[in-house]
Amino acid sequence: MTVKKASEAKIRTEKSSPKEIAARIKSSSEDIIKEINKQEDPSFTTMQRGKSNVVWDEKKGYLSLGEKQITRNFLNIAHAKRFMQTTMIMSKTFDYLSHNKTASIREIYYELKHTIEGTKENTFEGQDESDPIIVDLEHSVNTIREKLNLHANPKGTLYGNITLRDKMHHNDKFNASKLGRGGWSIMSRIEPEEIELIETDAEYCLVVETEAMFERLIEEGFPKDNKCLLIGTGGQAARGTRRLVHRVHNELDLPIYVFTDGDPYGWYIYSVIKQGSMALAAHSEFMSVPKAQYVGMTLDDVKTYGLQNVTEQMKEGDIKRAKEMMEYPWFKNKAWQAQLQKALTEKIRIEQQALANKRLDFVATHYLPEKIGNKDFLP
Amino acid sequence: MTVKKASEAKIRTEKSSPKEIAARIKSSSEDIIKEINKQEDPSFTTMQRGKSNVVWDEKKGYLSLGEKQITRNFLNIAHAKRFMQTTMIMSKTFDYLSHNKTASIREIYYELKHTIEGTKENTFEGQDESDPIIVDLEHSVNTIREKLNLHANPKGTLYGNITLRDKMHHNDKFNASKLGRGGWSIMSRIEPEEIELIETDAEYCLVVETEAMFERLIEEGFPKDNKCLLIGTGGQAARGTRRLVHRVHNELDLPIYVFTDGDPYGWYIYSVIKQGSMALAAHSEFMSVPKAQYVGMTLDDVKTYGLQNVTEQMKEGDIKRAKEMMEYPWFKNKAWQAQLQKALTEKIRIEQQALANKRLDFVATHYLPEKIGNKDFLP
Repeated sequence: MTVKKASEAKIRTEKSSPKEIAARIKSSSEDIIKEINKQEDPSFTTMQRGKSNVVWDEKKGYLSLGEKQITRNFLNIAHAKRFMQTTMIMSKTFDYLSHNKTASIREIYYELKHTIEGTKENTFEGQDESDPIIVDLEHSVNTIREKLNLHANPKGTLYGNITLRDKMHHNDKFNASKLGRGGWSIMSRIEPEEIELIETDAEYCLVVETEAMFERLIEEGFPKDNKCLLIGTGGQAARGTRRLVHRVHNELDLPIYVFTDGDPYGWYIYSVIKQGSMALAAHSEFMSVPKAQYVGMTLDDVKTYGLQNVTEQMKEGDIKRAKEMMEYPWFKNKAWQAQLQKALTEKIRIEQQALANKRLDFVATHYLPEKIGNKDFLP
Repeated sequence: MTVKKASEAKIRTEKSSPKEIAARIKSSSEDIIKEINKQEDPSFTTMQRGKSNVVWDEKKGYLSLGEKQITRNFLNIAHAKRFMQTTMIMSKTFDYLSHNKTASIREIYYELKHTIEGTKENTFEGQDESDPIIVDLEHSVNTIREKLNLHANPKGTLYGNITLRDKMHHNDKFNASKLGRGGWSIMSRIEPEEIELIETDAEYCLVVETEAMFERLIEEGFPKDNKCLLIGTGGQAARGTRRLVHRVHNELDLPIYVFTDGDPYGWYIYSVIKQGSMALAAHSEFMSVPKAQYVGMTLDDVKTYGLQNVTEQMKEGDIKRAKEMMEYPWFKNKAWQAQLQKALTEKIRIEQQALANKRLDFVATHYLPEKIGNKDFLP
C-alpha cells in the first residue's frame, strides 16, 4: 500500500494569516481616514469584474481576472451608498478576523442591515447589495472570501481512505472511509489552517455530479476496489467542495477525474472544476484544477454502450448553454467542439444514472474501470 | 453524564426481513400466474392515494391513508400498460431483495426502460410513470419503499455526540461529534437493519432547516454546551432524514425540537416532520414524530427580539400556502391559526439567519436557550 502524505510545501493558498489580512483591512481604512482628515475625497479601489475583465489564461489553464481597476469616491452621489456599505463590510470582517468568528454571506448581510438613524434609508436593501461589496473587498485587499472568514452554504460529500484533521474542533482526526456509507459532509470553508489533509492511499479522486451516483459507487465498493476517493458535488460544486478538490490534487498529488451527466450542464460543472468560472475568475489560482480530466458521460457513450433507449431530450436551456459553450476558448478543442456539436445536432442528453439500463453495477464494474484504465478521457 | 442506549424494543419499523418481503412479492406474482392459468383476467390490488383517501388521524397525531382500494385488471385497455409496468417493478425489486442490492428510484426507471421487441412502445416513457408504480407496490405488499431496497436522493447532515454503526460497511462505528465541524452526511436509507443507533448523551435533538444555521450552531459550540444533537435538513427533509429523526425520537427517547424560518414554507417543513405529508400518508407510522415541538421562528419573534429591520416580504407562493395551511386540520389550533393569520395580514416573513442582526452568536447564547429553557414552543 502506497500511502501519500500531504505535502505542506504544495499548499497553494493565500498564505497570509488572519492577523495579516486584518492588518490590510485596517491599513486601507486608515488611508480613508487620512484622506478625510486632509479634507480630500476618500476613495476605495477594487478590480473590475464581469466578462469585460475576465481573461482566459491559456498558459495557466484557467480563467483569471484582468487588470482593470475601478475606484469609488465618497463624494460622488452615485458611489456614496456603496462607499458606506464597503466601510461597513470592512469593519465587520475586521471584527470577525479579530475574534476568530466566521459568518455566512447571508449572516453578514443580516448583521449589518438597519435603518440609518434619523432617516428612512436602510444600509442594505437585500443580499444582492452586500454580496458584490464582499467581492469588492476580496479584490481590494487581494485575498479570497474564505480568508475574510466568510462563506456561502455548504454542499458536497467526501468518501474514501483519506485522513483529515479539523484543527478548530478538538483536533478531530477522522478517516472518510470509516463513516459507514454516508461519508463526510464537506464544510463551506476548507482552508488549510483549519482542515488538514493528512494522508491517503488513493491513486486518484473521482468527482461525481449526482449524490445518487455517489451512493451507487459506494454500494459497489468502487472506491476500495479501485483505490480512489469520491467527492459528490450534488450539482454545481460549492466553493468549499472546489477548494477540497483543488487541495486534494495539489497537496496529495492525486489526478482528478470528473464524472457528470452527458449534457451541457454537466460539462459546464466539469469546466468550472477544471478552469474556474467567470464569476470567480480572480480565485482560479486557489480553486481550479487545470489538469483535471473528463471521464464521462459523453454522447459517444450512447452508441458505444448501447444506451439509445435511455437518452432524454435536451431542453431549451441546454441548447442555449451548448451554443454559448462552443464559443468559450477553453472549450475550443476538437473533442469538446465535437461533443457540443453533437448535442446541438441530435438534441439528446444522457444521464450518468442511465448506465443502470445495462445493470446497476455496470458503472462500477465496466464503464469507469474501462474508461479510466484506457485513459479514455476528454480534455 | 447520562448516556442513553438505544432501545431495541422501541424500533418502530416494518419488522419483516428482506426475505419475507421478497416472499410477499413472489406470492402476489404467483396469484397473477394462477389467474392467467385459469384463463381469468389477472388483477393487482393496491391502495388509493391522493387527498380523497388521506385521513387526519387526530388520536395518533399524524396523517394516514384511508381504506379505499383500487384494483387494476390486465384485460382492461386503460389498465394494461400499468399492469405490465407493475409486474416489471415487482420482478426487479424481487431481484434487488434476493441479491442484497439497493437502487435509487431513478436507477430502477433506467434499468427497466426499453423498447418492447417488435413494437415502437417503450416500457416507461419517464420516471413519472415508474414512481407511482413503486408506491402501488409499497401498498400492495404493505411495506415501505426502503424495504423494497429503493431510495430517493440523500440530503441532510447529522452532528453531535451520538454513536452509530453501519452494519453493511465493515461494521463501522463512529461518533458524529468527532468528524470535525462537517458532520455526517445522512444516507438516503437509514433502516435499523443497516444503521444502528448505539448511544448518545444528548438530551434533545434540534432539527434545523438551513445548512448555514446548522454550521453556525456548531461554530458556537451549541450542541456541546446544550447537550443536543443537530440534524440539518437543507430545506424540506428527505426521507432518510425523516427516518433518522423518527428513530432518534423513538429509539433514544429524545424530544425533537424543530427550528425553521418563520414563514409558511418553514412551518410546513415542521408539520411534515411532525405529522407527515399527504403524499406519504401511508408511512407516517414510520416517519412522523407527533410529539415534535416547534421552537421558531415565529412572527411574534419579530417584536420580541426587535427584528423589524430584517423581515422580508412574503411572496405569492407563501401567501397561497398560508391560506391552504389554515384549512389543514393539524394546523387548526389557536397558536398556528394566529401565526398564519398574522402572516396573511402583515405579509412578512422572518428567516432564522435574521437573528444575526442582533449578533452572530445571539441564536446560540440567547434565542434557543431561552425558548427551549422556558418551553416556549408552538404545538
